[in-house]
Amino acid sequence: MKGSNRINRAWRLGKRPQGEIKDSDLELKENEIPIPTNNQVLARTIYFSLDPTNRIWMSDIDQYMEPVEIGDVMRAGGSIAVVEESKAPGIEPGDIVQGGMYGGWQEYFLMPGEEVIKVPVVEGLPLTTFLSVLGFTGPTAYFGLLDIGKPKAGETVVVSAAAGAVGSIACQIAKIKGCNVVGIVGNDEKCHWLKADLGIDTAINYRTENVLDSLKKACPNGIDIYFENVGGDILDAALTLMNNYGRIPVCGLISMYNNWDNPGPKMFRNILMKRLTVQGFLVSDFLHKYEESIEDLGKWISEGRIQFKVDVVKGIENAPAAVSKLFTGENTGKLIIQTSEEPK
Amino acid sequence: MKGSNRINRAWRLGKRPQGEIKDSDLELKENEIPIPTNNQVLARTIYFSLDPTNRIWMSDIDQYMEPVEIGDVMRAGGSIAVVEESKAPGIEPGDIVQGGMYGGWQEYFLMPGEEVIKVPVVEGLPLTTFLSVLGFTGPTAYFGLLDIGKPKAGETVVVSAAAGAVGSIACQIAKIKGCNVVGIVGNDEKCHWLKADLGIDTAINYRTENVLDSLKKACPNGIDIYFENVGGDILDAALTLMNNYGRIPVCGLISMYNNWDNPGPKMFRNILMKRLTVQGFLVSDFLHKYEESIEDLGKWISEGRIQFKVDVVKGIENAPAAVSKLFTGENTGKLIIQTSEEPK
Repeated sequence: MKGSNRINRAWRLGKRPQGEIKDSDLELKENEIPIPTNNQVLARTIYFSLDPTNRIWMSDIDQYMEPVEIGDVMRAGGSIAVVEESKAPGIEPGDIVQGGMYGGWQEYFLMPGEEVIKVPVVEGLPLTTFLSVLGFTGPTAYFGLLDIGKPKAGETVVVSAAAGAVGSIACQIAKIKGCNVVGIVGNDEKCHWLKADLGIDTAINYRTENVLDSLKKACPNGIDIYFENVGGDILDAALTLMNNYGRIPVCGLISMYNNWDNPGPKMFRNILMKRLTVQGFLVSDFLHKYEESIEDLGKWISEGRIQFKVDVVKGIENAPAAVSKLFTGENTGKLIIQTSEEPK
Repeated sequence: MKGSNRINRAWRLGKRPQGEIKDSDLELKENEIPIPTNNQVLARTIYFSLDPTNRIWMSDIDQYMEPVEIGDVMRAGGSIAVVEESKAPGIEPGDIVQGGMYGGWQEYFLMPGEEVIKVPVVEGLPLTTFLSVLGFTGPTAYFGLLDIGKPKAGETVVVSAAAGAVGSIACQIAKIKGCNVVGIVGNDEKCHWLKADLGIDTAINYRTENVLDSLKKACPNGIDIYFENVGGDILDAALTLMNNYGRIPVCGLISMYNNWDNPGPKMFRNILMKRLTVQGFLVSDFLHKYEESIEDLGKWISEGRIQFKVDVVKGIENAPAAVSKLFTGENTGKLIIQTSEEPK
């Protein structure tokens, strides 16, 4: 599993997927491990993040950043790597660093010394925590729910993809804020995890239940905040039950990523009727407040008020099959590929 | 045209329209003029407002207030009336008053004295001004554009239904704020009015132009604010060109009012991709700031910086045909029915 000697393996985008991602859309190519020059660092990837947004980057629609070009290394939402060689002052072999936009779906990469952000080594916190709840998915949930959703105690918060890396944290922050919390997920195991382990009030299995009917039961006073990760019919059901002045932070629309021709929500009119605020966001819109989120999340984790799951898949060769799990709902929590061993 | 002696004529909702409003959906019924008792006022309607939202109230979808019930007098967004008899202290026959929720599509009505709001008589300002730019349509444009849109000088503002009672004011306030303003309308006469008389930068005729292509030309730097009155394809075109962090105040969705089964916007995804804020509103959400809007609008009118049109249709019997003009795009500015003469 460790990167083969002097060879870097990298998943490159072979062609833009039509519908679901197929293995043949990506190509695992080999090239020589690059050599760091003045002020550069060579890092070996240990973990990289798989996220629904990978599918957006594979398409060439107008999106929030440049698409990945055909032939380029597939971009990752984040990675954690260990420095193997350094030509940059203050950075030593063995340092654990964030890959940022330099990592991606590959085993080795160069990055400029001035871009290096070291990952703290914290007793009892696995390194993967810094790709999940203390990386970007926790702060995503934090800012979407708190800065856009603005929950008040006693309000009802509905979260879709509620067992996901972001959704599960959004649910728990909403509970901390004293809300009635309803999570929508795709299987009964996830329902059980949300209710029994995370203390969420109601969990709805959208594959076996009528979501609108179940939401009506779970939200007798209507919905004040709908934390949106999926789009499609579930968005319509939530829109139908929103209260006046409700807020919808739009974090993701995963049900549309394989088919952008899907129509928009039929209940769009309720934005007007109920005077809703619907706001799209990325965690990067809140970087100026990032420290605040890490401080609060760290505290809640240490107090046992926030739990999280990490789903680590070993082997870079498994990345395309693994990313598809995000679209079939097979995984719970943060999905991560491990490409090499952590240093002892 | 004056209300016939001791008889009140009132348009009552006969059945809920399917698609466009048909004359047969409404019934002009007669009843005796009611007699005011303790603390009540009998008012004779002079003008009542016709608005796209009349169509919403005729339907029984879940909406921002109760629908008009079958058999009830059709509700009006506002009316101006003259007091004929008063049993309330401080209110005299001849006083000009707002009908509020007591008026509607009828010639006479009772209202409680404590609900009476007198209409100021201002030299040079026709009474109809208080049903249009200094009634609710001006403040609607004001709050939607300024409080939700938050325009900055140099930004690009697109307004749909731009020759309407609200749209035409939104366009002019955006010009006052130093924006590049693009209005979308349904005929060349309206284009001419916007550009030649109101000083709007670009006017697009959606019936003869490809709206997306024309918007691309008119908005080389993208769209920062889309003031939404219509929904449908025009909303999709605007969504396509929105800039990051753009704002969409949703004031109306008139293209959907005759068919709620129309799908939502295909470009809904851009709410996420461009991190847009889409917010529905009613002028009543801003009543606490109403005075501020009237002060500013009054000043801009007196300075000649805001112009407005009022389309007065005489005769209560013409109300159903007139309201349909809002949906075919035949009228310009504020549509009003006159049911009796102003006092000399």
